[in-house]
Amino acid sequence: MNFVYCISKNAPPRLLQVLLTPAPPPPRQPSLRLFARSLSVSLTNTNFSRFVLETSTTIIRNMSYHKPEAKTVQDLKDLAQKLRIHSINSTQASKSGHPTSCASLAEIMSVLFFQQLRLNVKHPRDPSSDRLILSKGHAAPILYAAWAETGLFSVEDLKNLRKIDSDLEGHPTPRLNFIDVGTGSLGQGVAVGAGMAYVGKNFDKADYRTYVIVGDGESAEGSVWESLHFAGYYNLDNLCVIFDVNRLGQSEATSLQHNMEVYRDRLESFGFNALVVDGHDIDELCKAFHCAANTKSKPTAIIAKTFKGKDFPNIEDLDNWHGKPLGDQADKVIKHLQGLMVNPNVKLSPKKVGKTGLAPEVDINNVKLCAPPNYKLGDSVATRLAYGTALAKIAADNDRVIALDGDTKNSTFSDKLKNAFPERHIECFIAEQNLVGVAVGAACRRRTVAFVSTFATFFTRAFDQIRMGAISQTNVNFVGSHCGCSIGEDGPSQMGLEDIAMFRTIPGSTIFYPSDAVSTERAVELAANTKGVCFIRTSRPNTCVIYNNDEPFTIGRGKVVRQKPSDEVLLIGAGITLYECLAAADQLEKECITARVIDPFTVKPLDVDLIVEHGKQCGGRVVVVEDHYQQGGLGEAVLSALAEQRNFVVKHLFVPTVPRSGPPAVLIDMFGISARNVVLAVNAILKK
Amino acid sequence: MNFVYCISKNAPPRLLQVLLTPAPPPPRQPSLRLFARSLSVSLTNTNFSRFVLETSTTIIRNMSYHKPEAKTVQDLKDLAQKLRIHSINSTQASKSGHPTSCASLAEIMSVLFFQQLRLNVKHPRDPSSDRLILSKGHAAPILYAAWAETGLFSVEDLKNLRKIDSDLEGHPTPRLNFIDVGTGSLGQGVAVGAGMAYVGKNFDKADYRTYVIVGDGESAEGSVWESLHFAGYYNLDNLCVIFDVNRLGQSEATSLQHNMEVYRDRLESFGFNALVVDGHDIDELCKAFHCAANTKSKPTAIIAKTFKGKDFPNIEDLDNWHGKPLGDQADKVIKHLQGLMVNPNVKLSPKKVGKTGLAPEVDINNVKLCAPPNYKLGDSVATRLAYGTALAKIAADNDRVIALDGDTKNSTFSDKLKNAFPERHIECFIAEQNLVGVAVGAACRRRTVAFVSTFATFFTRAFDQIRMGAISQTNVNFVGSHCGCSIGEDGPSQMGLEDIAMFRTIPGSTIFYPSDAVSTERAVELAANTKGVCFIRTSRPNTCVIYNNDEPFTIGRGKVVRQKPSDEVLLIGAGITLYECLAAADQLEKECITARVIDPFTVKPLDVDLIVEHGKQCGGRVVVVEDHYQQGGLGEAVLSALAEQRNFVVKHLFVPTVPRSGPPAVLIDMFGISARNVVLAVNAILKK
Repeated sequence: MNFVYCISKNAPPRLLQVLLTPAPPPPRQPSLRLFARSLSVSLTNTNFSRFVLETSTTIIRNMSYHKPEAKTVQDLKDLAQKLRIHSINSTQASKSGHPTSCASLAEIMSVLFFQQLRLNVKHPRDPSSDRLILSKGHAAPILYAAWAETGLFSVEDLKNLRKIDSDLEGHPTPRLNFIDVGTGSLGQGVAVGAGMAYVGKNFDKADYRTYVIVGDGESAEGSVWESLHFAGYYNLDNLCVIFDVNRLGQSEATSLQHNMEVYRDRLESFGFNALVVDGHDIDELCKAFHCAANTKSKPTAIIAKTFKGKDFPNIEDLDNWHGKPLGDQADKVIKHLQGLMVNPNVKLSPKKVGKTGLAPEVDINNVKLCAPPNYKLGDSVATRLAYGTALAKIAADNDRVIALDGDTKNSTFSDKLKNAFPERHIECFIAEQNLVGVAVGAACRRRTVAFVSTFATFFTRAFDQIRMGAISQTNVNFVGSHCGCSIGEDGPSQMGLEDIAMFRTIPGSTIFYPSDAVSTERAVELAANTKGVCFIRTSRPNTCVIYNNDEPFTIGRGKVVRQKPSDEVLLIGAGITLYECLAAADQLEKECITARVIDPFTVKPLDVDLIVEHGKQCGGRVVVVEDHYQQGGLGEAVLSALAEQRNFVVKHLFVPTVPRSGPPAVLIDMFGISARNVVLAVNAILKK
Repeated sequence: MNFVYCISKNAPPRLLQVLLTPAPPPPRQPSLRLFARSLSVSLTNTNFSRFVLETSTTIIRNMSYHKPEAKTVQDLKDLAQKLRIHSINSTQASKSGHPTSCASLAEIMSVLFFQQLRLNVKHPRDPSSDRLILSKGHAAPILYAAWAETGLFSVEDLKNLRKIDSDLEGHPTPRLNFIDVGTGSLGQGVAVGAGMAYVGKNFDKADYRTYVIVGDGESAEGSVWESLHFAGYYNLDNLCVIFDVNRLGQSEATSLQHNMEVYRDRLESFGFNALVVDGHDIDELCKAFHCAANTKSKPTAIIAKTFKGKDFPNIEDLDNWHGKPLGDQADKVIKHLQGLMVNPNVKLSPKKVGKTGLAPEVDINNVKLCAPPNYKLGDSVATRLAYGTALAKIAADNDRVIALDGDTKNSTFSDKLKNAFPERHIECFIAEQNLVGVAVGAACRRRTVAFVSTFATFFTRAFDQIRMGAISQTNVNFVGSHCGCSIGEDGPSQMGLEDIAMFRTIPGSTIFYPSDAVSTERAVELAANTKGVCFIRTSRPNTCVIYNNDEPFTIGRGKVVRQKPSDEVLLIGAGITLYECLAAADQLEKECITARVIDPFTVKPLDVDLIVEHGKQCGGRVVVVEDHYQQGGLGEAVLSALAEQRNFVVKHLFVPTVPRSGPPAVLIDMFGISARNVVLAVNAILKK
C-alpha cells in the first residue's frame, strides 16, 4: 500500500510544513531519491505536488540506480534525433504517414531499444526476448527505424514504407518477423501485452518483460482500462505501459491534454505504479524504466509528457499536422535536427537476451483429447457441456492448453478446465475486449493454446479485437454458448443471432457448429490444432447424441444424417435446427415426401461438394434452417456455395426479427425455424 | 478542486494529529456534515479514512438537507421489502430470473421511485420526466415491481414475467412504454444515460435528471469508463450513476469485491463527485441523492455497498445464487421479509414532474436538405465529403440534427456540421462504444436526429452497442468512411471490409451504399427520416458524379446505370466498384460483349425485383463486385435475393483475404475487384 500525500498549493501551511520537514525515513524509501527531481518539477508546474513512499505491497528491489554516463546519454539523444530523421524520410518517400506522431516517441524509442529491451536481433521472436507492442500503430515508421538501427535490416529499406512490395506497412503487421501482433485499431495493445505478461509470469516463469506503448488519444478507449485493471489485479510486474502523452489527437487536442496528474490518479487507482516523466528527457526515462523493472507485485505505467512533432520547428505542438508527411518543410526540419546532434553517425546496439530466466521449450502440436468421447447414442447432452468436457480433456493432454472466460464459466462450462487445472483458467471478468486481447497475447509466439468462452453474442463486444486478431495471424479459439432464440426466457439481449455472420467475415477463420456431444468434442480437438481464428458455436438446450464415439470428423466435411434414394429435398440444419430438420423429415415421410438431411459440422469452410452432390440428387431443392438472423449465417454460406450452380432453389428459414422472452420451443416455432416451419417450406419448395 | 487527505492507519502519529485536530473550517464545507458518519464508518472498516472538502470547482448549492421523517423512512424500508417480495414471486412464477440481483437494489429502488424520481406515470415517456436506465438489466423484476407500485400496471401482472405473451421480458426492452432502451448486455447504460443528460443540459436545457444503475460486475466493462470520462469531461451534473456493489458476479466474486475505496478513487479520478454509502440504509441514500441533485458542474456517482440476496436468510452474500429463483426457499424467505416490515400494505406515490424547467416541444419529422445537391455531372467528389456537405444542409433545416464523432471528424467530414453549428457537434474522442451509446441516448424520446461517424471498420468496436440499439428500437444513423481496400496505404487495420455484414445483421436496419455525391446527399436526407438503424457507407477516393442534381432516390430502389437490349450479363457494384463495373463494360464492349450495370443504392433493403428482372434479361448471369469480404456483404445480399430463383448463376468478386498497404488502384486489382477482374469474370460466366 502507498502513502499518498496530495497537497494543494493552498493547503494549510501547517500541513505543508509537516510534509516538507525531513521526516524520520520509513525503513525503505528508495523511490524518495528517485523522484526528488520530479517532485520539484510538479511543484512548479501543477497544482499538486505528490510523492510516493513505497511500502509493504510494492517492494522495490535493487534500487541502487546508476545514472548512465554522460556519453551514453548523449548517444541516446543523438539516436533519438536519428530516429526522427528516419521517420521523416520514410514518410516523405511514401507521401503518407505520421511523422509527428513518431517524433513524440523518439527519446522513448531510443531508450527502449538501446538501453532497456533485451533482444535477439537475429531471431526477433525468440521466446525469451522482451516483447514490445506499439499500440499506437500509426507511429510504425519510428518502430521500423529503431529495428533498422539494431541491424535487423538496412536503413535504406525504410524508404519502402507503405510500398506494395514491402512489408513495412502503414501500420505494423506480423508479416514482419519483428512484429507479434497487428496494431492500428487503437486501444488494443495493453490487452495483448497483458496476455504476454500473464504467460511470462505464470506459465513460462521467465525473465522476459513486456512493454506496450500507448498513445494518449487511444487511452480514451475503454478497452485500455479493462486491460489496466486486469494487469493490476493479476500483479503483472513484468508489464510496463508507456503513455505517450503528446496532447494532440487527430482532429483536435485530446480531452486530457497535458493534465498529467489526472493520468497519474487514474493509473494509480487502477493498481499501477505510476511514474510521470518528461518523455523527452533521456535521464528521466532511464530512471523510470529502471524503477519499472525493479518494482515488484504491480505493473508500472510510465506517463511521458511529450510533444507531437517534437523538435520540428513551426510544427511541434501545433494542430493540423496529424497523419501528414512534412512535404516542403522536410529538408529544413532535417537540417534542424542534424544541428541538434553531437554525433550524426551515432550507432548503438541493443542489449542481448540473458542466459538465465529463459522461456521453456513448448510443444503445442498435435493436441489430443486424452480420452475419446464417451456417450451413448440417444443421450441428451448440451453441446456447451460437451465443450467443457472436451476442454478439460485436451488440457489433460497438453499443459499449454488454457481457458479464459468473462465470468460466464458456469454457463459456458469452461469451469470444467478450472476444476481440473485451476492455474490454467484465467478469469477475465466482464470485460470481453480485454478477454479477447489477453488470449491473443497469450497465444503469441506459440506459447499457449488458448480457448476463450462467453455467450456467443457477447463476442460482438470484441469484434474489433477479433478482426485485428486475423491481421495478427492469431490462433485463438473462441467458443460462444447460448446461441439463438433457443435460449428462451432470458430474451434477445442474451441470444447469439449474428455470431456466425461476424466470425465468417474473419479472414482464414474456421467455424464449427456441432450438433451433438460427440461432434463437439471433436470440434474442440480440431480447433486446438487449427491455425487462424476458430469459432465453436454451442447451444444451451440439450440435444440428442447422434454419432458414435468413434465417428471421425474433419474440417470442411459434413455428414449426411438421413437419406433415401427417393429424397426430393435436401434439408440443412445445425445445432438445434438439425433436430428440427430430422423431426420435419419424420413428419414429411407420413405425407410420403422423403427428405435428405445434412449436418454441415463446419460452416466455414462449408462442404460445398457434399451439398452440391446431394442437392442435385434432391432436384436442386434445398431448405436451410438456422437459429440465426438471415444475414451472413449458415443460409448465406450455402447460397455462396451454390452461387455458380444453375438450377438450384433454396428456401432459407431464419430468425426474421428481434425475438423475445419465452419458452424455447415456443420461440423456435414463433420465429419460423421449427419442424412445422420446415414442413411448410418443403411443401412450398416442391412446387418450384 | 478537492483537497484529498488519504491517511494510512499506520501513518506517522504527528500527521494524523494534524488532520484530526479540529482545523479552522474553510469558508464553506457543507459536505463535512454530510459525510461525518461515513467518515467514522470508513475509519473502522477500511485501511483509509478520507474526507472531502468541496472547494472551488464543485459548488454545492442548497445543501440545507432535511432528513426525511421517521415515518417516511420506515415506509421506504417497507416498500423495499415489498419490492423484494415481488421479485421473488415473479421469478418463482417464471421459474427463472435473478431475484438475488434484485434484492441488493431494493432500498435504492425504493428511494429512487418514491423519494427521488419525478415521473409522469400516465405517460412514462414524458420528455420532461426524469430518466432511469437499469444498466444491470437482469434485475428487471425489481424495476417492473417498482413501476407496478407506482400504479402504471397491476402488481398481479408481475407474475407474467418472461411469459411469451407478456412484455415483461427477462431483460427490459422498449416494448414496455416505461423503458427507453434495452439493457441486458452489460456496461452500456452509462453511455445512454450520458447521451440523455447531454441533451437535457445542452439542447433541452430542461430540469429532468438522468439516473443509471450499474452493477459492480459490469463496471469491469471498459465501455463504462469511456462513458464516465465523457460525463466528467462534459460536466454532466444532471447525471447520477448508482453503483450497486453487491460483491458477487455470476460465477465468482467480482475482482474488487467490497473494496469501496478503490471505486471511490477511480470515480473521483474520472471526474465524478463520488459518494460511498451503505446501499441498504434509506437515510444515507436519501442524503446522497440530495447531494447529487445539488452538486453543480460534475456528475455524481453513488457507490452503494450492498449484498446480493440481502435479507434472504442463508442466501445473502453467498455464492451460487446468481440467476436462480429461490425455489423451495421462497416461502421461508418471503415470510422472513414480511416479518421485517412494519406496514405490509405500505403504498407510496412517486413525485410528479414539476411545472417549470420542462423540455421544449421538438419536431424531427420531415427533415430536408436545405438546398438540393449542387454538382456537375463528371465532377470528382468523394462520397465522404458529400456526406459532410449534406449533414450541414440537414442541420440547417432542423435544429435537432446533431453529429457525433470519435476524433475522425476531419476524415469523415462531420466537421462540416461543426463548422456551421459548433454546439451541435459532440466530440466523443477515441471511444467508439461510448460514441454509439451516447447517440442512442441522445435519440431517445425523439429528442434529436443523431448522425454518428467514424471509419467504417471502427464501428466493429461498438457492434454490441449497435446490436442492442436494434433491441432498443433506436433511430440512430451511422456513417462509416474509409471502406474497403481502396483506402490504400494505411493498410488493413483501417479498412472497412466487414461493415456491411455487421450492419446487415441488425434487425430493421437500412444500409445505404451511395456511389456518387448526389446519391450520397439523398441518402443522408432519407436516413434522417427513416426509423431504425441506418448505415451509410462512404468511400475515401473521389468518384465521378453520375446523377443529375434532381435525380430522385428511394430506399430499396436501385438504378440501372447502363443498358442495351443485347446485354448478356448483369454487373452489380457499389461505391468504387460501380465504376470498375462501368469501366469493365466499356472494355467488354470492345470485345462485342455488352453488359448491363446496376447501382443498388441501398444494400438493405435490396431492390430484388430490379435485380431479378434485369438478371433474367441478361440470361440469368450476374457478376457482383464489392470492396468488402465475401461474407455478408452486397454479394450475399444478392444471393439471398435470388435464392428462390432457378436458373441464375452468380459470380461474386470480393476481397478474399487480409489486404495490405499500397496504392488504391494496385490493391483493387491485386485483391480481385478491378475492371480487369470483372472482365475475366464475365468471360468465365458467359460459359455457364
